[in-house]
Amino acid sequence: MDNFLLIAASETNANLYYASGFLAPDSFIYLKTGGESMLLMSDLEVDRARLQSKVDHVLSYSDYEEKAKQQQQKPTAMNVVSVLLKEKGISELTVPSSFPLECGDALRALGYKLTIKREPFFEERGIKTAEEVSAIRITQIAVEEAVGDLFDLLRDATIQDGHIMSNGTALSSELLRQKLHLMLMEKGCLAEHSIIACGIDACDPHQIGHGLLRANEPIVFDIFPRSIETRYFSDMSRTVVKGMASDGLKKLYDTVLEGQALGISRVRAGANGKAIHEEIVARFERYGYKTGRVNGRMQGFFHGTGHGVGLDIHESPSISGRDCLLQKGEVVTVEPGLYYPDIGAVRIEDMVLVLEEGCKNLTTFPKFLEIP
Amino acid sequence: MDNFLLIAASETNANLYYASGFLAPDSFIYLKTGGESMLLMSDLEVDRARLQSKVDHVLSYSDYEEKAKQQQQKPTAMNVVSVLLKEKGISELTVPSSFPLECGDALRALGYKLTIKREPFFEERGIKTAEEVSAIRITQIAVEEAVGDLFDLLRDATIQDGHIMSNGTALSSELLRQKLHLMLMEKGCLAEHSIIACGIDACDPHQIGHGLLRANEPIVFDIFPRSIETRYFSDMSRTVVKGMASDGLKKLYDTVLEGQALGISRVRAGANGKAIHEEIVARFERYGYKTGRVNGRMQGFFHGTGHGVGLDIHESPSISGRDCLLQKGEVVTVEPGLYYPDIGAVRIEDMVLVLEEGCKNLTTFPKFLEIP
Repeated sequence: MDNFLLIAASETNANLYYASGFLAPDSFIYLKTGGESMLLMSDLEVDRARLQSKVDHVLSYSDYEEKAKQQQQKPTAMNVVSVLLKEKGISELTVPSSFPLECGDALRALGYKLTIKREPFFEERGIKTAEEVSAIRITQIAVEEAVGDLFDLLRDATIQDGHIMSNGTALSSELLRQKLHLMLMEKGCLAEHSIIACGIDACDPHQIGHGLLRANEPIVFDIFPRSIETRYFSDMSRTVVKGMASDGLKKLYDTVLEGQALGISRVRAGANGKAIHEEIVARFERYGYKTGRVNGRMQGFFHGTGHGVGLDIHESPSISGRDCLLQKGEVVTVEPGLYYPDIGAVRIEDMVLVLEEGCKNLTTFPKFLEIP
Repeated sequence: MDNFLLIAASETNANLYYASGFLAPDSFIYLKTGGESMLLMSDLEVDRARLQSKVDHVLSYSDYEEKAKQQQQKPTAMNVVSVLLKEKGISELTVPSSFPLECGDALRALGYKLTIKREPFFEERGIKTAEEVSAIRITQIAVEEAVGDLFDLLRDATIQDGHIMSNGTALSSELLRQKLHLMLMEKGCLAEHSIIACGIDACDPHQIGHGLLRANEPIVFDIFPRSIETRYFSDMSRTVVKGMASDGLKKLYDTVLEGQALGISRVRAGANGKAIHEEIVARFERYGYKTGRVNGRMQGFFHGTGHGVGLDIHESPSISGRDCLLQKGEVVTVEPGLYYPDIGAVRIEDMVLVLEEGCKNLTTFPKFLEIP
């Protein structure tokens, strides 16, 4: 029987939030042993944890500190943890890769054997329940409504001197991003780094985009808020042009769309993410779209095809250059892209639920390049 | 000369963002040696890092992986890091307490000596520049405007059956929180867990508050957004009653206000946070407000008096039970509170800049208990 120990702040550590159901800004201690889960909480959080967490026992850190003081004058935090571990008869612990080194060193110095377990730390976290899929889908509905409203705005806009004008204002990445984030917040979702990147900006896949948008150039939208209530993310990318796309960009778009369809058609339980990714890369290369550094800059398809989505925006599994067998119940993105500064940038991303045979697309937003 | 190594995602690791000026959702590698700083970046991020980061060199992880492959077929990430460390002639590294255990183990197995440095990992991060103080103040101005608007709403509201009515709607924690977050976002600030907690909810200091607000009961507002542009937080708490406060609550409020004034009067370079905290605790006890567990629940003043604010909402230094000498240029909160389920909850929080003699209050929002 593994004994799982986490020491982290659950606001930034999804494993700890998943296991405890308790959200806190500062580090706290979670232990699971023999099917029994418990938290060791500061005076500040102990009563709230008793109300809100889903663990079996919420213990007072102060109480254990008092016990530790019977053995030494100034116990460290790991001395305090050790009192609990000894009570439970634990000498071996399973901890995540990200476990704090200082805690690891201190526990080992106290004689504990630590085994590091990589992601997925809790295998069951990857396999979404119906309720989790529903939570992801609810976040995604907010995304589709909000992006739909933005695209309507682009549709109603006019083109002047290459800029995109709405009610006398030239639209910028910043302006659309703020509109989007306000709409998402009204729908109960929190977004921070939404990508609305035009032209050369979009050729850096994680560049969020700045300045005035230009007509007849690709604009990549990559929108991945989390629900404030459930904390589940969704993730969708679309690429559009206000006005008319060049022939080169149209061909790029069709190629990415075909690559994405290929990827989606390959997702099923037991499929290897690496094989899916490599098949898309090969398809792109067959059409002449190579990946690599040109004039000192990465071009082509230089990110993974997809990643798990849940309480983290990027979580297990991956569809990329690494071997990774997909499992039924995982929610993954399929988001190939091609980026060439002299042609443009295209990324198209849906979220799908892995099934025994194939997958179910959780994204229902249409795909089109041009917005006239 | 220390060699500093960080491996983290800068979106959730403020030290890494502070040192690199580069924001990314996934883990990357930062090294500083002999006054020279560098990043080792994936193909996905390398070009964006060259544009956006403030380090001296942005190196390609793929390039170093190729070098590592000349020595072994399947190099691990730490093998790749080791190629860079060897190039730089580095054998000893300084890493933070939170450094990932798996990376620490791997580097030690490769022969590196790791020294853990606790917070503040970068001492200079605690000492705010004029520009950083200005960034914090700009976030705080947004907070004061938004909270001012909320209090105006409470002032205009009426009381019906103990509820607080605005335009025919009974106000709830959730409704006010959403209004607040939308106002803050319009002002360029992102808030997530703002506390608007009424009555018994407020007796748990980190309970964000749920359900309908009640007149004549304390409502604790604790608002701590970050600027989307600068990423600097601010932090302010106020406690108000819509209607009339009980005599017991008024006395509690006056006591906390006096404790806060005492705390602010003690903040200066060289002061020990522990002494300040203990003096406030003693003052509260002198007035009969004891701290401890009563009927299984924490009551009194059971959190710290204050904490640093900057790129993290909770950062060094602390004004709490731990020894900690304040330094000129630090920005700290002073936020005593008293919590008694049978009387009510009060927390009052300002942010101050530590000066050679005394401190400068960065919070200009008025303090009052009753909103008629």
